[in-house]
Amino acid sequence: MSSARPVAATLPQPLRMSTLFVRTLREDPADAEVASHRLLMRAGYVRRAAPGIYTWLPLGLRVLAKVEAVVREEMVAAGAQEVHFPALLPRDPYEATGRWAEYGSNLFRLADRRGGDYLLAPTHEEMFTLLVKDLYSSYKDLPVTLFQIQTKYRDEARPRAGLIRGREFVMKDAYSFNVDDEGLDTSYQLQRDAYQRIFERLGLDYVIVAATSGAMGGSRSEEFLTPTPIGEDTFVRSPGGYTANVEAVVTPAPEPVPYDDAPAAHVEYTPETPTIARLVQVANEMHPRPDRPWEAADTLKNVVLALTHPDGERELVVVGLPGDRDVDLKRVAAVFEPAEVEPATEEDLAARPLLVKGYIGPQVLGPNVRPAGVEVGSPEDTAIRYLVDPRVVEGTRWITGANSSGQHVFDLTVGRDFAVDGTIEAAEVRAGDPAPDGSGPLELARGIEIGHIFQLGRKYARALGLQVLDVNGKQVTVTMGSYGIGVSRVMAALAEANHDDVGLAWPAQVAPAHVHVVATGKDAAVFEEAERIVAGLAGQGVEVLYDDRPKVSPGVKFKDAELLGVPLIVVVGRGLAEGIVEVRPRAGGDPEKVAVDEVVEHVTGQVVELLA
Amino acid sequence: MSSARPVAATLPQPLRMSTLFVRTLREDPADAEVASHRLLMRAGYVRRAAPGIYTWLPLGLRVLAKVEAVVREEMVAAGAQEVHFPALLPRDPYEATGRWAEYGSNLFRLADRRGGDYLLAPTHEEMFTLLVKDLYSSYKDLPVTLFQIQTKYRDEARPRAGLIRGREFVMKDAYSFNVDDEGLDTSYQLQRDAYQRIFERLGLDYVIVAATSGAMGGSRSEEFLTPTPIGEDTFVRSPGGYTANVEAVVTPAPEPVPYDDAPAAHVEYTPETPTIARLVQVANEMHPRPDRPWEAADTLKNVVLALTHPDGERELVVVGLPGDRDVDLKRVAAVFEPAEVEPATEEDLAARPLLVKGYIGPQVLGPNVRPAGVEVGSPEDTAIRYLVDPRVVEGTRWITGANSSGQHVFDLTVGRDFAVDGTIEAAEVRAGDPAPDGSGPLELARGIEIGHIFQLGRKYARALGLQVLDVNGKQVTVTMGSYGIGVSRVMAALAEANHDDVGLAWPAQVAPAHVHVVATGKDAAVFEEAERIVAGLAGQGVEVLYDDRPKVSPGVKFKDAELLGVPLIVVVGRGLAEGIVEVRPRAGGDPEKVAVDEVVEHVTGQVVELLA
Repeated sequence: MSSARPVAATLPQPLRMSTLFVRTLREDPADAEVASHRLLMRAGYVRRAAPGIYTWLPLGLRVLAKVEAVVREEMVAAGAQEVHFPALLPRDPYEATGRWAEYGSNLFRLADRRGGDYLLAPTHEEMFTLLVKDLYSSYKDLPVTLFQIQTKYRDEARPRAGLIRGREFVMKDAYSFNVDDEGLDTSYQLQRDAYQRIFERLGLDYVIVAATSGAMGGSRSEEFLTPTPIGEDTFVRSPGGYTANVEAVVTPAPEPVPYDDAPAAHVEYTPETPTIARLVQVANEMHPRPDRPWEAADTLKNVVLALTHPDGERELVVVGLPGDRDVDLKRVAAVFEPAEVEPATEEDLAARPLLVKGYIGPQVLGPNVRPAGVEVGSPEDTAIRYLVDPRVVEGTRWITGANSSGQHVFDLTVGRDFAVDGTIEAAEVRAGDPAPDGSGPLELARGIEIGHIFQLGRKYARALGLQVLDVNGKQVTVTMGSYGIGVSRVMAALAEANHDDVGLAWPAQVAPAHVHVVATGKDAAVFEEAERIVAGLAGQGVEVLYDDRPKVSPGVKFKDAELLGVPLIVVVGRGLAEGIVEVRPRAGGDPEKVAVDEVVEHVTGQVVELLA
Repeated sequence: MSSARPVAATLPQPLRMSTLFVRTLREDPADAEVASHRLLMRAGYVRRAAPGIYTWLPLGLRVLAKVEAVVREEMVAAGAQEVHFPALLPRDPYEATGRWAEYGSNLFRLADRRGGDYLLAPTHEEMFTLLVKDLYSSYKDLPVTLFQIQTKYRDEARPRAGLIRGREFVMKDAYSFNVDDEGLDTSYQLQRDAYQRIFERLGLDYVIVAATSGAMGGSRSEEFLTPTPIGEDTFVRSPGGYTANVEAVVTPAPEPVPYDDAPAAHVEYTPETPTIARLVQVANEMHPRPDRPWEAADTLKNVVLALTHPDGERELVVVGLPGDRDVDLKRVAAVFEPAEVEPATEEDLAARPLLVKGYIGPQVLGPNVRPAGVEVGSPEDTAIRYLVDPRVVEGTRWITGANSSGQHVFDLTVGRDFAVDGTIEAAEVRAGDPAPDGSGPLELARGIEIGHIFQLGRKYARALGLQVLDVNGKQVTVTMGSYGIGVSRVMAALAEANHDDVGLAWPAQVAPAHVHVVATGKDAAVFEEAERIVAGLAGQGVEVLYDDRPKVSPGVKFKDAELLGVPLIVVVGRGLAEGIVEVRPRAGGDPEKVAVDEVVEHVTGQVVELLA
């Protein structure tokens, strides 16, 4: 019986270096900071068109297509259905969810010829929600998970590292729709499993870490990070298996301390102590403690931060934390998203004369200065919000600013002498800090975020009115998940993980070809034999890149082969006189001498093994 | 020997209607004017996201992917190499070629967070030129032809007809690079041949017509049109095989007429004759010609047009043409691109008191009023340009306006009484007009432009400095071709060409599935047998859409099958009791009764035939 899909149609055409649209560069491009960027440029996989915007050359496009194919196959295997949304979208849906404003300068906005507001989508929650609303109306229609592999836009303040943080990039985004939370858990788990299979198939090392959900909203959220020293993300792990993005690390709060017997707070003269180090020194000199010396951890440092909200409003907040810890602005940013956070400026401080730089204390902040009867957050409440590190628990006693130059207050006690507006995860996480689940001391590492899965919950469905009839005929709001993989970034991460000093070394699953055949010298017989090998391999379904350039030296050809990173290099050259060709694995391992009659079968076998 | 590409990996997964993300609509959408738009919406292939901007649902995406695959295969077979450019591009290259301004309101423009100017690319000539300049430097590197299949943007004034004229759409654009004109001819022909194969494989009827090259610049240009009454383009063909887009039709110019014996021009009183019909009537009444009556073709109609140039300048031009012809604004627009053309307004005329509405004559226009010593087009030359239809040749005598209300001049003779600035293809083309190559009378028809191939020449290479060393070591400017296929538009054209009153009827090559298996009734045995057939077909590589919905009536299932348009419909139902299933070809032809044991083999054979 004949098949509707003849095998022959899928046989790959060999690529020939003599005509392939590629030029390798011997020098590193000036703006390339990381290996993947440097090597993808040098090997002629991509070219820069504008900051954070890249053109894909033939070899780069082949690798990208293979990464996409793996992602697509696993999405389909997980039951997700592929759709494709426009990149150019009208403002309305993003206005309905507030994200038109929340995205701030990260959003590319434009107007059409009629003055209608549009955006280049950074992500598509709104559109998927509206599409399901358009098609579906009953619990019987659910669950459904949809995905697309599509070009996305984000006007990054600092596009960097080539494909790792670009402004136009390829993403797989998927969205699940369920009637209830249990269903969401199931859909989330299906995507989570698919992500694990994807990264395993791609041979990309990964860790799954707890994450904050940021501007997406929602509850549960995990990131897939591939560990690498050049990663922008910091994560923690404990010996007992706790992992989290550093932004998501929860500081274990100590038990409250009894303070019935605590001495009363007392203001002391501490001249010229604007820094913690100097304060500790002066405290020990002028106000020593009998049992042991004062340490930075005995002081309460109050850091003034300025938030810029999406509506443009600027708000000052003060964060109180033990003096031996610094504020981690990325952790703070995750708390206040979508507002932007920066240290307060001199102007900010000048506008608030109560804040005495270097001597700020909680007594003038937050609930401590609120007039009687005014509620926290009410319009009459104009106090500066005061948030503290979770270690600043009730009953703890601190040396902190007395809001007067050269003065600090000692034994200021939480819950007795001052109140707070709440706690905040603002302090840096340090190696050795305890894991929140008691699983041991944390280790810090860096990684690239390659995937992110969220339980969005009902935020988008509510904002856009996505309801279905439930089993009782009642309208219920649908609950959603959102699942992203940075496809072009994954390709960069693969390059980052698979290279050496002289070039790339792709895993066979994503390599632009399986075998790089290099014909050396000027002997016509060499080129004829190489052609036969190339044809033989292609006939077995092996993808071949064939260096058939007649006037290029063997040295240049070998350098190019090492730079381009095809996993198996077959050298057809002088050995041919003895009936021998050489097979070199690019990623390391010993070169083999193989009889020319056996090379097609031998190499095909190796390719099948590499692809398994 | 094991193959590196196992066949099993390519086996298609059946689609199940019970879970497929699709909902058919019984009613036509309000805004859908043409069949393809109406049916693609009703059958759940696409949804509108904004005017001219569509979302692809699973079935639509499958068809689009198949059209893309055919285009890609034929591009690769023609030796073109695939790359991929960003859609978001910086202004600079488009400024260098003048197109940043020339595109006018058709271009989506935006600024990034630093105020840099960007555009959403409507086409990529500039970027391809710069990329080849970046990589190549010698004649030895050429020829090369590159292509991409990519999302493009054009801010159409009137997006319409669904995918046929959208604002975000998928295009294949290819560009060839050669050192000399002969090479360009070869590259052009290779693409032209590939286009023919593509449309033949897709089963899409097409004509190749001569075209104008418009804003692209360049010399030779042909369009591929698919004939359909709903097409936006008008083309002509002659019995002898001449074909052209109506904009490109060249009017054969008659031989000059001797005018030594012609009577002198004489102004006559022709009261209230602002129209040609009225003028002919009055001329015959008041100034009859002895031999035969005056006809509209004896009058010279002068039409005032207003051009808006890309720099915003507004210019009036007057077009003189035989009074029995109307101006075809689309033909005029093709001449003046990138300027925009419209009929002059009352305000335009009011600002030029010399132009007496209804009585305009050449005597106050163009070279006829130029002061001595002023050259045409020089800064001192402020006369209104006067261009005439090619039929207005030297020695022809005309009745035309005398630039005074109620007055016309008779026997005004070209070359004796007035001069012109040149000729223009502005007059409408009519059925029966002679083909310019003498191949007989023209017939007019309408079509959708599905492909366009251009010999760009050196315009872009010159503007962007793309030179290579030639064989003599001299820098020469590269010559280019540009070749486009509207991929999403081709899909709409296929729907337009393959439907009936009740739905779509896809060719097997692009259908979302090859076979639509419909299980009817409530009998579990029917569904079990249908499952076996579906699995059997899938095992043969046949793509199956299986209507497995348990509670949907046979009538609804059949309606859906007819609407969705899969080429073969297999009905598994009551006949099963007699061991029979029914196979219905969607596009027409008799249904067959097939024994259930043979249906997999039988239908697979039919699919193989349809795909051949």
